[in-house]
Amino acid sequence: MKRLSLALALLLALLVCPAIAADVRYEIHFPDLPGYQTLACDLHTHSVFSDGSVWPPVRADEAWRQGLDAISVTDHIEYQPHKDDVPTNHNRPYDLTAGAARARNLLCPKGAEITRDTPPGHFNAVFLRDVDPLDTKDFLEVIKQANEQEAFVFWNHQGWKGAEKGRWLDVHTTLYENGWLHGMEVCNGDEYYPDAHRWCLEKNLTMLGNSDIHSPDLREKSTPSGHRTMTLVFAKERTLAALKEALMERRTAVWFQDQIIGRKDLLQPLFGECVQVAKPHLRTKNAVYLEIRNVSDLDIHLVRTGRFGPREGTLPARSVTLLKIDADTPDQPLELAYTATNFLIGPDEGLPVVLNVAAP
Amino acid sequence: MKRLSLALALLLALLVCPAIAADVRYEIHFPDLPGYQTLACDLHTHSVFSDGSVWPPVRADEAWRQGLDAISVTDHIEYQPHKDDVPTNHNRPYDLTAGAARARNLLCPKGAEITRDTPPGHFNAVFLRDVDPLDTKDFLEVIKQANEQEAFVFWNHQGWKGAEKGRWLDVHTTLYENGWLHGMEVCNGDEYYPDAHRWCLEKNLTMLGNSDIHSPDLREKSTPSGHRTMTLVFAKERTLAALKEALMERRTAVWFQDQIIGRKDLLQPLFGECVQVAKPHLRTKNAVYLEIRNVSDLDIHLVRTGRFGPREGTLPARSVTLLKIDADTPDQPLELAYTATNFLIGPDEGLPVVLNVAAP
Amino acid sequence: MKRLSLALALLLALLVCPAIAADVRYEIHFPDLPGYQTLACDLHTHSVFSDGSVWPPVRADEAWRQGLDAISVTDHIEYQPHKDDVPTNHNRPYDLTAGAARARNLLCPKGAEITRDTPPGHFNAVFLRDVDPLDTKDFLEVIKQANEQEAFVFWNHQGWKGAEKGRWLDVHTTLYENGWLHGMEVCNGDEYYPDAHRWCLEKNLTMLGNSDIHSPDLREKSTPSGHRTMTLVFAKERTLAALKEALMERRTAVWFQDQIIGRKDLLQPLFGECVQVAKPHLRTKNAVYLEIRNVSDLDIHLVRTGRFGPREGTLPARSVTLLKIDADTPDQPLELAYTATNFLIGPDEGLPVVLNVAAP
Amino acid sequence: MKRLSLALALLLALLVCPAIAADVRYEIHFPDLPGYQTLACDLHTHSVFSDGSVWPPVRADEAWRQGLDAISVTDHIEYQPHKDDVPTNHNRPYDLTAGAARARNLLCPKGAEITRDTPPGHFNAVFLRDVDPLDTKDFLEVIKQANEQEAFVFWNHQGWKGAEKGRWLDVHTTLYENGWLHGMEVCNGDEYYPDAHRWCLEKNLTMLGNSDIHSPDLREKSTPSGHRTMTLVFAKERTLAALKEALMERRTAVWFQDQIIGRKDLLQPLFGECVQVAKPHLRTKNAVYLEIRNVSDLDIHLVRTGRFGPREGTLPARSVTLLKIDADTPDQPLELAYTATNFLIGPDEGLPVVLNVAAP
Repeated sequence: MKRLSLALALLLALLVCPAIAADVRYEIHFPDLPGYQTLACDLHTHSVFSDGSVWPPVRADEAWRQGLDAISVTDHIEYQPHKDDVPTNHNRPYDLTAGAARARNLLCPKGAEITRDTPPGHFNAVFLRDVDPLDTKDFLEVIKQANEQEAFVFWNHQGWKGAEKGRWLDVHTTLYENGWLHGMEVCNGDEYYPDAHRWCLEKNLTMLGNSDIHSPDLREKSTPSGHRTMTLVFAKERTLAALKEALMERRTAVWFQDQIIGRKDLLQPLFGECVQVAKPHLRTKNAVYLEIRNVSDLDIHLVRTGRFGPREGTLPARSVTLLKIDADTPDQPLELAYTATNFLIGPDEGLPVVLNVAAP
Repeated sequence: MKRLSLALALLLALLVCPAIAADVRYEIHFPDLPGYQTLACDLHTHSVFSDGSVWPPVRADEAWRQGLDAISVTDHIEYQPHKDDVPTNHNRPYDLTAGAARARNLLCPKGAEITRDTPPGHFNAVFLRDVDPLDTKDFLEVIKQANEQEAFVFWNHQGWKGAEKGRWLDVHTTLYENGWLHGMEVCNGDEYYPDAHRWCLEKNLTMLGNSDIHSPDLREKSTPSGHRTMTLVFAKERTLAALKEALMERRTAVWFQDQIIGRKDLLQPLFGECVQVAKPHLRTKNAVYLEIRNVSDLDIHLVRTGRFGPREGTLPARSVTLLKIDADTPDQPLELAYTATNFLIGPDEGLPVVLNVAAP
Repeated sequence: MKRLSLALALLLALLVCPAIAADVRYEIHFPDLPGYQTLACDLHTHSVFSDGSVWPPVRADEAWRQGLDAISVTDHIEYQPHKDDVPTNHNRPYDLTAGAARARNLLCPKGAEITRDTPPGHFNAVFLRDVDPLDTKDFLEVIKQANEQEAFVFWNHQGWKGAEKGRWLDVHTTLYENGWLHGMEVCNGDEYYPDAHRWCLEKNLTMLGNSDIHSPDLREKSTPSGHRTMTLVFAKERTLAALKEALMERRTAVWFQDQIIGRKDLLQPLFGECVQVAKPHLRTKNAVYLEIRNVSDLDIHLVRTGRFGPREGTLPARSVTLLKIDADTPDQPLELAYTATNFLIGPDEGLPVVLNVAAP
Repeated sequence: MKRLSLALALLLALLVCPAIAADVRYEIHFPDLPGYQTLACDLHTHSVFSDGSVWPPVRADEAWRQGLDAISVTDHIEYQPHKDDVPTNHNRPYDLTAGAARARNLLCPKGAEITRDTPPGHFNAVFLRDVDPLDTKDFLEVIKQANEQEAFVFWNHQGWKGAEKGRWLDVHTTLYENGWLHGMEVCNGDEYYPDAHRWCLEKNLTMLGNSDIHSPDLREKSTPSGHRTMTLVFAKERTLAALKEALMERRTAVWFQDQIIGRKDLLQPLFGECVQVAKPHLRTKNAVYLEIRNVSDLDIHLVRTGRFGPREGTLPARSVTLLKIDADTPDQPLELAYTATNFLIGPDEGLPVVLNVAAP
C-alpha cells in the first residue's frame, strides 16, 4: 500500500507534464472595430545581435505565447556590445526570427534601430527590405534610405533622457516635412511621454507603444496588471501589407499599463466594443438593476459626468459588474454619461462616453 | 517634495479602491450547445438555518461572483444544530436568499435536504413550493409530498459513507418505480461516486454535481484549478421553468475537478463547441502547423487513438495550442482521432473525438 | 492503456486532496521587537448576531488561517437586523467563538460595539466580562460600565461619515478626561482617518486598525497586496493579559494597505528588525555591492535624504534586493540616509532611517 | 476635479514602478543542517554558445532571482548549432557569466558538457580550469583531462533516451574504477531516472538534479509548484571550495517537482529541520491539539505507520497545520510514526519519520 502510493506519486509527477509553455498561447482581449481587426504589435525589441540578451527567435516565442499578432526584432545598427562574440550581420536577427514567426502564425516585419546621440535620438524603421544600406554615417541619409525602402519610420522613446534632450529640432522638422517620419513612441517600456503624445495629435503622426525589451520577457501571458507596452493596430486584415497600411494611416492605440492611449475617433468605437450594457433585469419603484460586461483586458475606470449612475467606479477586465441605478422613472431608458479616465484621448484627457440603458 | 510623495502615497492608497468583490462577476466559460443555453448550477448548499455557517443570501453572492446561473439553499429539514440560536423556519432560507438572487439575475429554486440515516441517505428536493409539509416522519411520505409539489428530487452523495452504506435498497427501487427519484449526485464536493455514475446511466437518472458547501466559499472566481463542483444544465432558456425541464429531461453534465462527466450524446456536442481547430497556417514538405483553441474553462486531456498527431497532450483552458502534425501528404485534409480522457462518458471511459484538419 | 490512464486520472483527482483550507495557517511576517512579541490583532468584526453574515466561529477560522494572533467578535449591541431569526443574546457570539479560538491557539477577548448616532459615533469595548449590562440607553453610562469591567475602549471609524460628523465633541472630552477612552481606529477596512491619526498623537491614545468585516473574508492568507486592516500589538507575551497591557500602554502599529502607521519610537525598532543590511560582497574602485533583506510582509518604499545610495526604490516584501552604491571610498563604512515613506509616524510624515553599510 | 484625477492616474502609473525584477531575489527555504549550510545549485545550463537561447550572464540573473547559490553554464563542447553566428570559444560563457555572478554574490564554477552519442551519453565537468583541452576526440581522454583539472564529473540525464540507451557499459565501469566519475543526474528537467537513483546508492555516487535549461527560465521565484530541478548541497561554508568538497563527499539531495531525493542519513536531519512540532496548546479528555510548522518550500506528504495521528495528510510548504490527535492519555508524550512519502531514500521508498509530541 505504501509502495503503491509512492509509485503513484512518481507516476503522478511524471504524468502531470503541463504543455510546454512555449507552445501555449493566451490571447489578448481587445475586440475588433467595425471593419477592422485589432492586431497587438510590438515593433521594438532587441537580441544578442545588438545589446539584447536572447537569441532572436525567442522574441517570436514570447510574442506568440503572450497573444501578440506581430513582432519585430529591431537591433541597433550602430551599437553592438557583443560584437567580439557575435560579428555584425544586420539582416541576421530577422532571418533567424522569420521561420519561428511563420511557424507560429505571427507577422514579422524586418526592422532595425537607427541609433544616434540624443538629440536627435533613436529611430526605428520597420518593413525594411535590407538593413545593410542603413549602416551609413549621415543621419538624414539613413532615414531617407529607409523611406526609399518604403519602411515605416518612427521616433523612439522621445523623452527618455528628459524634455530638453527630447525636444523637437530642425532635423525633426526636415524629416517631418519630407514625409520621412511616420510616428512616435508615446510609450516605451515603463515610460510615457506627454510631449510625444501631444505632437502625435498636433502633427498627425502615428502613436506607438513598444516594449524595447532587451532581457527575456518573463510574462507567460498578457494580463491587465502584467503585459508589455504594445501598439494595438486596427488593420483591414491580418497580413503584413494591411498592418503597414494601418500604421501609415495612423489607426493605432497604445496599451500602456492600465491605460489605452489613442485618437478619439478610434477610442470611441473601441470603448463601444469593450463595454456591453445588458437590459435591466430588475426594476423597483425607484431603481433599476443591470449588468455591465467588460470584455477587454483593461480595468476600465469611469467618473460620472451626467445625472445617473454611481459617482465613479471600475469595470474590472473580463468581468461583469452589477449596477443599481437610482432613478425616479426606472421604466424609462437612461443615458449614463461618464468619462473613461483611462482611455486617454490627449495628455490628461479622458474619453467622454455614454452608456445607454434600455427601458426594462 | 518628500511631503508631496507622502501625500500622494496616501491619496494613491485611497484612490485605488477596487470594486467591491461582491459586485464583480467572473463568468464561467462553457459554451452553449446548439439549441440550448448552458447554465452553471449548484443545487445543494447550506446556511446557518441548518449546519452551515453563513447567512443564506451569502450563497447568492458567492454564486453570482463565481459565474453561476442558479443556486439553491437546501438546508436540512431534520438537522439543525444551531436551533437554540436560530429557531426552526424551513422556508426562511429561501425567503432570505430570493431577493439577493433576483437583484443578481440568478435563478433560485426553493429547496431542502431530506435527511435520514445512511442508508437510505439524504435526498434533495428543489423547485418546492413549501418546505413545511416535508417535515414529516415517514420517509416515503416526504418524498411523495415533494413529488406532489412537482419538485425535482435527487439522491445526495450516494457513496460518502462507503459502498456498503450507499447500496441500492428496496426503498430506492420504490422511489424509482414510482417516478419519485429523478437524479443522483455523481459528485459532491471533493467526492466522486462510480456507483452513482453507473446507476445514472443504467437507470436513466439525471447526473448532478453539487458543492454541498457549509462554510463560506473563498473562491473569487471559477478557474480550471479552483471551482466548486457544479452541474451544467443545457436549458432551452435561462428561466426557472426551462431549468427544471432540462433537469427532468436529464440534459446535464457535471464539472468536477478537472473533469466533465455526462452522457455521450451531450458531451460530444459540448466537446465540439469547446475545441476550435483552425485552418493550417503553414505547410512544409512533411508537416502542417495549426492552432487549436480551447474556449472552455477545462484543461482538456487527449490521448491519440488514430494515426496522426502527437501521442498525447493537453489543451489548456482558454488558450491556443500550437500543433505540428507530421504527415506525408500535408496538403490533404486530416482526421485526428483521440480520446478526451477527462470527458467521462462512463466510469473509466473517455469520450472518443475526431479533430478535423482542413487542407491548407 | 487508455483504461489505465483514465483510472489514473481519477485516482489522481482523488489523491490530490489538498489539506482543508481551514486547517492551514500562513503566518504573518512582522518581526518581534526587542523585549516584545508582535501580535497581529483584529478587534472589530461582526457575525449574524448583529449585521454580519457569518456564524461567529467563522471569524476564528479566518483569523487563524490568515496568521492573526487575536480576534474579537464585536457585534452591535443596539443594532440587530436579523433579530427576527436570531433573537438577542449579547454574550452568545463570544461563547460560540471562544472554543474555536482555543482549539486554534488564538487569543479571543470578549467584545461588543456600542452603537450610537454619528456623532458621537460607534465605540468598541473589548476584554469585557459581560456584555448585557452595556445594553443601556445612556451613552455615558454604557462607556462607564465598560470601564468598570476594565475593558479597553476605543472610538471606531471616526471619519466614516465625513470630517463634520467625525468631529471631537464635548462628550468625547468627557470620556477622555475620565480616562474612559483608550484608543481610536486610525484605519477601518479601506478607510484612513488623518484626524484620528493626529488626535492619537496629540492626546496619547492607542492607534488601532481593524477590519470591521461583515461578510466572509475571502483571503486565504495575509499578503502584502491582500490583507485585512489590522493592529500589530507589541506585547510582553502571547496572553490575553499581556495583549491588554500592551493596548493600554499604546504599544501598537496599524498595518493598512501598503503602510505601517504608528509612533516613531515603535516604528524605528520595527524598521530595524524588518531590514537587514548584509556586509558588502563585492567592492570595485568606486562602488560597493551588497544585499538588503526585507523579512517583513511589507513592500518598503524608500526615498533618499542623504548622500549615498539610489534616489528612491522599493524593498519588496520577503525578498533580497541587490544594491550597487557608488562611493569614492568604497572601503569605508557608509551611512545611507532615507525616509521610509510608508512607515507613517504622522499624517504625511515618513520615518527617517539610516542603513549602515559595513566596510567590506 | 476630472483633470486632477487624470493627472493623478498618470502620476500613479508612473510612480508605481516596481523594483526591476532582475534585482529582486526570493530566497529558497530549505533549512541548513547541523554543521552544514544548504546551498541550492544548478550545475547544468546552456547559452547561445552552444544550443541555448540566452546570453550567458542571463543564467546568473535567473539563478540569483530564484534564490540559488550556485550556477554553472555548461555549454556543449562538441555541439554548437549557432556556430555560424557565434564562433567557438569554449571558455567564453564562463568569462561572460563570472562577473555577473560575482556582482550577485553567486558561486559560479566553470563547466562544460562533454557530448557524445548515447550511449555512452553526455557528461558534465564542473570546477574546470580551462575548457579547451577537453575539445578532444577520444572520450576517455576527455574525461581523464577533466579529472586532471580536478573537476567534478557527472553523467547527465542517464535515461533520457530510454533504459536501453542509458544502460551501464564497460566504458562507465572504466570511468568508475578510475575514480573519474563522481556523480549522476538522478533528475534532469522534468525527468526522473530510477536506474540512476539506484546506481548512486549502490555505487556511492553523488546524486544530482539540474535544470538543463536552454530557453529563458520564466520563473520569478522558486515556489513549491514552480521551481527548476536543482541540487541541494550541504556544504561547510558558502565558498567554491566547500561546494566542491561537499559534492565530492556526496552531501547532496535533489529537489525535483514535489519531491526531495537523497540518502537517508541526509534526508533524516533535513526532515528534522523542516518540520517543527509545537507543544500542544489544548488538551481535552481524549485529544490533544497542536500546531506543526513546515518551514520548507516543500509540501510534505505523510502516511501514518504508527498508532497515533491522522491516517495521512500534507503539511503545506511554509505554513502551520493544526492537528487534533485522538489519544486516550492525552497528558502523555506521544510518538507519531509516519512515512514522508516525498522524501525519497530510494526508488519507491519514502523516509520513515517520528514526530515527537511533548506532554502538554
